[in-house]
Amino acid sequence: MNRQSIVKKLKFNKDGLIPAIIQDVENNEVLMLGYINQESFLKTLETKKVHFFSRSRKRVWLKGEVLGHFQLLKEILLDCDHDALVLKVQQLKGACHKGYRSCFYRKLESTSGEFKVFKKKIFEPKEIYKEAE
Amino acid sequence: MNRQSIVKKLKFNKDGLIPAIIQDVENNEVLMLGYINQESFLKTLETKKVHFFSRSRKRVWLKGEVLGHFQLLKEILLDCDHDALVLKVQQLKGACHKGYRSCFYRKLESTSGEFKVFKKKIFEPKEIYKEAE
Repeated sequence: MNRQSIVKKLKFNKDGLIPAIIQDVENNEVLMLGYINQESFLKTLETKKVHFFSRSRKRVWLKGEVLGHFQLLKEILLDCDHDALVLKVQQLKGACHKGYRSCFYRKLESTSGEFKVFKKKIFEPKEIYKEAE
Repeated sequence: MNRQSIVKKLKFNKDGLIPAIIQDVENNEVLMLGYINQESFLKTLETKKVHFFSRSRKRVWLKGEVLGHFQLLKEILLDCDHDALVLKVQQLKGACHKGYRSCFYRKLESTSGEFKVFKKKIFEPKEIYKEAE
């Protein structure tokens, strides 16, 4: 497989990014939405671990680099417009830095109009980030 | 529920948009990624049918307005950074204008490096768009 020719099939936006929906390959839960540039896409293909481009830190990062909560790449899906990806992954522990398996841990409660937590926390981010220091 | 106060909880990007992952409420299949502005979010809440903002046509549109393939809103999930949504929907017929239920109908085949169609077409877009004219 020629990785450069795969990259050419993707349409990156004016900032050089393509959004990637990260989905649990086992139960199809959506874990997060991240942004990928050419370099992070190539690193993801090479290592089979998902890499993103951080828009705030302006650098490529390996998801899980601090805590070991890697996303092991299993499948790559492309949409009809070539400008969005679904990456199906095996998620080690949790995707969310707040301690949840998915970043989408809040749901709109229609009666109150509040977004309420409906997922279980699986680790305490304060403790674990302290350990990782 | 006060719809304006719900809108205030979302972080729209510099173009006034928030990405929305559309997911089938029945089997968790990811159907598409769309972009929503304040007006289309409010219309989605009011009508319980998903509305997007078209970046190319620069207008709010009701998903399914031509063919009746509406997305009936069932749940709204918000991510940890308040800048991405998952909308769980009941999808009438297909989400994709190419004739598939999901816009993510191609998967990377690692041996060839090609994105190959792996979903079944459920309608013929040419025929159906002609009927709708």
